[in-house]
Amino acid sequence: MPNISQRGEQMPESPIRRLVPYAEKAKSKGVTIYHLNIGQPDIKTPETAMNAMRNINLDVISYSHSAGIESYRENLTKYYQSAGFDIDKDQIMVTTGGSEAISLTFLSCMDAGDEVIVPEPFYANYNGFATAAGIKVVPVISNIETSFALPPVSEIEKMIGPKTKAIFICNPNNPTGYLYSKDELEQLRQLVLKYNIYLFADEVYSEFCYDGEPHISVMTLKGIENNTVMIDSVSKRYSGCGLRIGMLVSKNKNVIDTALKFAQARLSPPSLGQIAAEASLATPDSYFLNVHNEYKKRRDFLVKELNSIPGVYTPTPKGAFYTVARLPVEDSEDFCEWILRDFSYKNQTVMMAPAAGFYSTPGKGKNEVRIAYVLNIKDLGNAVETLKKALEIYPRKTE
Amino acid sequence: MPNISQRGEQMPESPIRRLVPYAEKAKSKGVTIYHLNIGQPDIKTPETAMNAMRNINLDVISYSHSAGIESYRENLTKYYQSAGFDIDKDQIMVTTGGSEAISLTFLSCMDAGDEVIVPEPFYANYNGFATAAGIKVVPVISNIETSFALPPVSEIEKMIGPKTKAIFICNPNNPTGYLYSKDELEQLRQLVLKYNIYLFADEVYSEFCYDGEPHISVMTLKGIENNTVMIDSVSKRYSGCGLRIGMLVSKNKNVIDTALKFAQARLSPPSLGQIAAEASLATPDSYFLNVHNEYKKRRDFLVKELNSIPGVYTPTPKGAFYTVARLPVEDSEDFCEWILRDFSYKNQTVMMAPAAGFYSTPGKGKNEVRIAYVLNIKDLGNAVETLKKALEIYPRKTE
Repeated sequence: MPNISQRGEQMPESPIRRLVPYAEKAKSKGVTIYHLNIGQPDIKTPETAMNAMRNINLDVISYSHSAGIESYRENLTKYYQSAGFDIDKDQIMVTTGGSEAISLTFLSCMDAGDEVIVPEPFYANYNGFATAAGIKVVPVISNIETSFALPPVSEIEKMIGPKTKAIFICNPNNPTGYLYSKDELEQLRQLVLKYNIYLFADEVYSEFCYDGEPHISVMTLKGIENNTVMIDSVSKRYSGCGLRIGMLVSKNKNVIDTALKFAQARLSPPSLGQIAAEASLATPDSYFLNVHNEYKKRRDFLVKELNSIPGVYTPTPKGAFYTVARLPVEDSEDFCEWILRDFSYKNQTVMMAPAAGFYSTPGKGKNEVRIAYVLNIKDLGNAVETLKKALEIYPRKTE
Repeated sequence: MPNISQRGEQMPESPIRRLVPYAEKAKSKGVTIYHLNIGQPDIKTPETAMNAMRNINLDVISYSHSAGIESYRENLTKYYQSAGFDIDKDQIMVTTGGSEAISLTFLSCMDAGDEVIVPEPFYANYNGFATAAGIKVVPVISNIETSFALPPVSEIEKMIGPKTKAIFICNPNNPTGYLYSKDELEQLRQLVLKYNIYLFADEVYSEFCYDGEPHISVMTLKGIENNTVMIDSVSKRYSGCGLRIGMLVSKNKNVIDTALKFAQARLSPPSLGQIAAEASLATPDSYFLNVHNEYKKRRDFLVKELNSIPGVYTPTPKGAFYTVARLPVEDSEDFCEWILRDFSYKNQTVMMAPAAGFYSTPGKGKNEVRIAYVLNIKDLGNAVETLKKALEIYPRKTE
């Protein structure tokens, strides 16, 4: 039998992959599992998107332009204008989800062996895209004590070497929910200018900011227009994860032209998803207001409840719909497995993502978990109650 | 401004990219362009797929399983059984088009610097996927004189070295329409066994075989079950190119497990496309019979008409919906540009793909073009008449 590739062997598994069999077993025994582990919102996809499918009137579902349907890109320019910056339709490339936008960014801006600096904890799949592209993720640690703020610029600067091609942020952040401030972005602006490197920003949660704090897109930063690449997606914004529609946005023509060469090889992004995503642009403001209010309510509830459990601490995230919580356990992977395998309360249990999977520094995040608040308040309440009861009897607690 | 990547610079452009501005200019002058250059069929997507969209009844368009919707994979096993081989649903991974299936195959089975042997001419985007994956395509030449049959095994064997990980065929072939015989596949079977390498087969045109010749899938070859990876797609089968749904099929569990790790990073294939593709499985046989008869009629017409033009020669392809034709010109790239830029007949012109883009050996295919017969007979007739008139006055003819 021929061998598989070395990069295939090195390809990291999802942080929750190992937990799936335990979850399946619990489910098969009739236990209710509250999924705090995934970013699949329970919010309805807008009616305008669903109606675009119900009223579809095409003879042939054909390829679109490799950069996406022109009218969709045209309409996206208006969306971005309302978000505070001007962009041309030719500076937007529609991709197969934010995932492909990240892959194309890596392939277009970096070669095998090149390095990208990423504040950790970070979205675990960045490791996967990096492995596929043969590039190296260089982490700089952000800490729960500072609510996962941007690490000091001096720390980031220390990591910059001859192979460094980019800094990559996720704003608001998955997994921490941290929302970068104007001052933090200004520091990054100066840094990328100083070293003439790229600034990649995954802004797929830009619509999810709370407490009146503004989202500041890297596309609004002056003087680094040729350094910035923004990654966007409709997955969370319109609760349309399955559409698989994202965007790569940059004013750097070389980057867009190069990404387009890679995109032409795969022909086009999904046509049905694009039609639904274009229709989603007409989603009324009331939809977002409802979604915003719902997530804010969930966040406030979750943070308060978590922090009321002895030994548990989570900061208050300003964006997205995740938070990282510190638990009074030695090893959150063991705890996340145990709670699925050996524990239930009122025939319920909880699935969470061990945070170690979001760090690339070994040993970091061992007592942290990522919790997604994509469940309604009642379910969230049951989930946190279950977590509390579990921590009371879990045998490998630290305090 | 930071540099783009070297691989981005090396990324090959589509063979017809350079022609697009000339086509746009001709169109803007009101000239009708017959597109013989693309594989976008004019056949209608089956009603059963369209109805699945019209009757969609979901609240949330969510991620699917990373390997694809389970019921779809289950139903695909029945489709493959009717095609002559047994496969388990866990041996099928649904991908974002056949394109992604190829990328995942390369990433899972090969490392940067590894070599894959491909009979040329070959589908030009293989070069793109190879560049993205950092692997090297090693061509073995097939010739128009032998209707692009498999090159002698001795020629293929000469190319096998320490870096060779796979042989990659497209069957029926894009761009040549060649359908590999049982004997040719047996030769490949023995070769991959002898060298313990992979056999990748792009079989997306398997439903398009003419003259009663059978399509022989690599999945039916005995004793090399762990060497074979089959790439499939619904794009051509159900005229659903825009669905972006393909499959990676292999009985090698390591390959599937590894491909799944890469697939998990990108979360899932498009959900709407999968729903439409699953519905397409119920397409009645009469649809395929009509499509088959239509393409056979077009092929017979096209081959006869092309061969009646002085100096033009094309073999009779046994499958797919392309043929490679030799033209009496020095440089088909120049001719394809000239016919769009400087020529029209009855206010019509023709866009074709210069065949050099389908070869990786420099200088090969210089007097050949790929012609797709995805137009109705009337348009095909007008296109060939236009081509004939153009060749009469083209200044850089060879005879």
